[in-house]
Amino acid sequence: MTSTLTTDLQNEVHRLQQELHAIGTQIHHDDGSERITISEYLLTRLEQLGVTSVFGVPGDFNMPFLDYIEDNPNMEWVGNCNELNAAYAADGYARVKEHSVGVVVTTFGVGELSAINGIAGAFSEMVPVVHIVGVPSTVQLRTKPMLHHTLGDGRFNAYTTAAEQVTSAQTVLMHKATAAAEIDRVLSECITRARPVYVGIPTDMVGEKISTKGLKVPLSRTPPPNDPEVEKYVLERIDQLPGKSASKDKDIIILVDACAIRHDVRAELNELIGQTQFPVYATPMGKTAVSEKGERYGGIYIGSISDPGIKEKVENAALILSIGSLKSDFNTGMFTYSVPASRTIELHSNYTQVRHAQFPGIGMKQLLPKLTARLKRHRDTAAKMSVAQYKAILPKENEAEGNLKPETISHAFFWPRMEEFFGEKDIIVAETGTSSFGILDVPLPEQSVFVAQILYGSIGWSVGGTLGAALAARDKNMGRTIAFIGDGSFQLGVQEISTMIHNKVKPIIFILNNQGYNIERHLHGMDRQYHTDLYVWCVKWTSLLTTFGDAAGTESRSYTVRTKEELNSLLGDAEFARADKIQLVEVVMDKYDTPRGLRVSAELGEQIQRMQAKLAA
Amino acid sequence: MTSTLTTDLQNEVHRLQQELHAIGTQIHHDDGSERITISEYLLTRLEQLGVTSVFGVPGDFNMPFLDYIEDNPNMEWVGNCNELNAAYAADGYARVKEHSVGVVVTTFGVGELSAINGIAGAFSEMVPVVHIVGVPSTVQLRTKPMLHHTLGDGRFNAYTTAAEQVTSAQTVLMHKATAAAEIDRVLSECITRARPVYVGIPTDMVGEKISTKGLKVPLSRTPPPNDPEVEKYVLERIDQLPGKSASKDKDIIILVDACAIRHDVRAELNELIGQTQFPVYATPMGKTAVSEKGERYGGIYIGSISDPGIKEKVENAALILSIGSLKSDFNTGMFTYSVPASRTIELHSNYTQVRHAQFPGIGMKQLLPKLTARLKRHRDTAAKMSVAQYKAILPKENEAEGNLKPETISHAFFWPRMEEFFGEKDIIVAETGTSSFGILDVPLPEQSVFVAQILYGSIGWSVGGTLGAALAARDKNMGRTIAFIGDGSFQLGVQEISTMIHNKVKPIIFILNNQGYNIERHLHGMDRQYHTDLYVWCVKWTSLLTTFGDAAGTESRSYTVRTKEELNSLLGDAEFARADKIQLVEVVMDKYDTPRGLRVSAELGEQIQRMQAKLAA
Repeated sequence: MTSTLTTDLQNEVHRLQQELHAIGTQIHHDDGSERITISEYLLTRLEQLGVTSVFGVPGDFNMPFLDYIEDNPNMEWVGNCNELNAAYAADGYARVKEHSVGVVVTTFGVGELSAINGIAGAFSEMVPVVHIVGVPSTVQLRTKPMLHHTLGDGRFNAYTTAAEQVTSAQTVLMHKATAAAEIDRVLSECITRARPVYVGIPTDMVGEKISTKGLKVPLSRTPPPNDPEVEKYVLERIDQLPGKSASKDKDIIILVDACAIRHDVRAELNELIGQTQFPVYATPMGKTAVSEKGERYGGIYIGSISDPGIKEKVENAALILSIGSLKSDFNTGMFTYSVPASRTIELHSNYTQVRHAQFPGIGMKQLLPKLTARLKRHRDTAAKMSVAQYKAILPKENEAEGNLKPETISHAFFWPRMEEFFGEKDIIVAETGTSSFGILDVPLPEQSVFVAQILYGSIGWSVGGTLGAALAARDKNMGRTIAFIGDGSFQLGVQEISTMIHNKVKPIIFILNNQGYNIERHLHGMDRQYHTDLYVWCVKWTSLLTTFGDAAGTESRSYTVRTKEELNSLLGDAEFARADKIQLVEVVMDKYDTPRGLRVSAELGEQIQRMQAKLAA
Repeated sequence: MTSTLTTDLQNEVHRLQQELHAIGTQIHHDDGSERITISEYLLTRLEQLGVTSVFGVPGDFNMPFLDYIEDNPNMEWVGNCNELNAAYAADGYARVKEHSVGVVVTTFGVGELSAINGIAGAFSEMVPVVHIVGVPSTVQLRTKPMLHHTLGDGRFNAYTTAAEQVTSAQTVLMHKATAAAEIDRVLSECITRARPVYVGIPTDMVGEKISTKGLKVPLSRTPPPNDPEVEKYVLERIDQLPGKSASKDKDIIILVDACAIRHDVRAELNELIGQTQFPVYATPMGKTAVSEKGERYGGIYIGSISDPGIKEKVENAALILSIGSLKSDFNTGMFTYSVPASRTIELHSNYTQVRHAQFPGIGMKQLLPKLTARLKRHRDTAAKMSVAQYKAILPKENEAEGNLKPETISHAFFWPRMEEFFGEKDIIVAETGTSSFGILDVPLPEQSVFVAQILYGSIGWSVGGTLGAALAARDKNMGRTIAFIGDGSFQLGVQEISTMIHNKVKPIIFILNNQGYNIERHLHGMDRQYHTDLYVWCVKWTSLLTTFGDAAGTESRSYTVRTKEELNSLLGDAEFARADKIQLVEVVMDKYDTPRGLRVSAELGEQIQRMQAKLAA
């Protein structure tokens, strides 16, 4: 039965293909507009979206397409060291570039599967990444010969099935008649949903000519309009609430989260804050969505891990306007986020929830300005609601913490000290794990951008991520790119520093050398050998840059700091701070020391596991 | 409708789970045998299969399981730098270890997806690799909270769906009652089919206790028996054929291919050769399946790319006994393999084909000895069939080739020169691409093992692969591990040399430095910039080992050779040849020079594409 069905389906597919082909021929003859190759069409769309750098690794199935990238004067081909790093770089690029997409090009099978974890990260974290894969010719895709890079059993759909798991739209451009529409469909999905998409280009489609007509209409980022009647009802419902709850002692607060960044409502959000003067807090994944130096900004809320003052303010608020929340474990202090629905209004990209009632299809992009217009009448009351200044406290320099020697660079010292070093418009990249916890307590400067992978948490993401972030920052005339990476994480993608040198970006990379996987020690098995298998990596950090491209030592600088004094002295050095060369700083830290947030998270995680085990028993 | 169905199914699953749980409790009470944890059960099975090294990267979902590995006195945890390298290492280990499996341990999502391309390679190339993934607790897998490492949308099955595409059996150990049976099922699949399998271990199952009873019966590698009646019929059919065709001038030849190695029939094959004296040829993927120094061995057959003498002998044979063929593009000279079915008997792991007739279920492992018994009567005739000695010809040292300077190390010189350097029992690893083509014309020594990824062809495989191969070689008291890797390929997984240093293996790694991706230049766009984006990588090859672990320079040696004389001098140095330290040799070659086989393959590939394009137009 199945086999007959398959045959029938295959025949139907073939018939439809012929029909499409006939239509294609017709369109191509009747259209009359200028014609360009499918590759140029795709690249033009990406240019329209602001893409200037394309990441990836060459392979025989994508090389014909790479010719078009190399020949495009408005686009740089960034040849990466491997595909996973390339995908991470595309992710970092998209995060910093904003209103654009990251692009990674790989080859059939071997390349695309090497990149898939980076694509999955972009899906999880809602980053618009376009994964372009050079695939065999349409003839080969139909006849399925035993080509290299295949699984050897004729299953040519295995890779796209894997891709479907981690992208929100997919296409393989099998017909020139539909190529433009298919490209537009997946790119629209990418930019409106902020999720990665997959575009397969067969080798024989790369140079096929199609009409340029579609290109005259740019792709729209505008989400579908809210239903006016439902929207009005929602606004009225929301409008009633502050009336009852607002007072000097009963805060109405705004709680900013990941999707405020991902779904591009920062401008609308700043209007809301400016006009209403409600106190603002952010979750870890919402960090730098709004100014951290603003008067109405109170800091990072992360459930039980929060600073007690912040915890009290958020959890006791009479009303919480939650913008783009994403309630993952590490973003909520291991699910200790305590913001009851009865006191919360949740704004999302595609729905709104007022206390317990959900309103599907009412998205925040259009709702926010109307909400601001209604709520600004609370401005005077709101301005009286107190907000404790959010600042990091630098311990006294020669005071020992715990078991540490007084001069040792502790986490308690390091992160607040970095605050003084950061400048406006800096891009701050934190590797998942120790660094992404450490940075939470530090307010970042105006117009700075914080990037980290807090939900997906793929170790090693930040090396490729820093490359992409630095290229986007250069495009946008941002400040320095400053990255924090542990010695454990750095090894996964270390070779990508050669691509940084080659592309002349100049990040400052702080390697937190604590002899192994710090976060993992705190999560399980403090003294296990498997956390420190990489001890050999401690040896020659400072020769990495000269080994990986700057042989003469003229394009880079490397440092090791072992004491607070050495750190202070380096950070105070104007030449260092100028960041006119790529710089690597090995920061020698204690093996067991860890940021407060991480220590508490690990303890909470253990408690939860014990509870679950009890429940299960 | 669907949703009701889903609910019904979920209820049914729940009911069955409870039933299983009840049975489990019963078994556990009634059994009476010793009890060990699920982790120990799995590790014991792997020990029984000869596993001594386990590859992988720690992550919070796999750390409880890693405790059992670290505590197991018979097993070494090899902490890798990243998961893809770990998977490649497990693949290399399995290839050299033989009659065993490679094991790689990763963590949920981020880790397993990073490794998936290595697993896909093992699937394609038929290498038995067990991918063990630490996954969330059974409670979490059922309740699906928004944990780190998830896609954030509750799809907890996305990663296993991806894994299903590239493994031949999968299990997630959700119940202790079935854990032992599930482990045995997937491991049996792995060793009998020579394909990778997937084992997910939830964090709360790691320490659950089960009976040791099953462990008393080792897992069987023996394939299911051939049907005696069909087998007899097949043997008679085969037996008739040589009678008609065998003569001094009409060769009956044996053509050895990949599956002879993968499905473990080398001993049976050597018996066939020894007893019958038929001439033997091998495909690229069959290289070193049989002795390359044997009197009856004629060399490598690779369709139109073959040495003309070998091509004539194979294609004009009266009868070809094809053992374990795998007809992929690079293994058949871009499908120019010309061995007509009417003159061929194909022996496979699970079927036999006599000319045009297929006999499903008749596998070669049991068929070969019986075939030998019948065919040995041809010995005298067979011994008279001439076999040209297979040898590589070393060009004169000071003769220029093509445009090259006379002293330049050409491929035509390099590979035959290496033949003199190789010794018995050496493990020879060739990276996919230039090296795997270059080595084809070189006969390898007795009991040497050649490993390369000729079908799947994932660039960078050989760095992790060399680590795994070297560890297996140490276990088996083999000779040196000698790897050939291009500068383009080396960058993808370069950090794994630190793991080699840490684990004190001592491969000799020849880096063929031709300033970029040599094979890709020859396949498309000879002077494209994208082939040479890694030019920075040419700078300091010789400082890699000291940067990556041997800071003192006492455990390693690094060299650069630029001329034939320098190469000769190094290869002639007894200290170098002893390989008592890890050694890296940068071999500076011309950018455009390439092995003969690769040049011809690229030309053939282009011709095929042009033909296909014509057909499609």
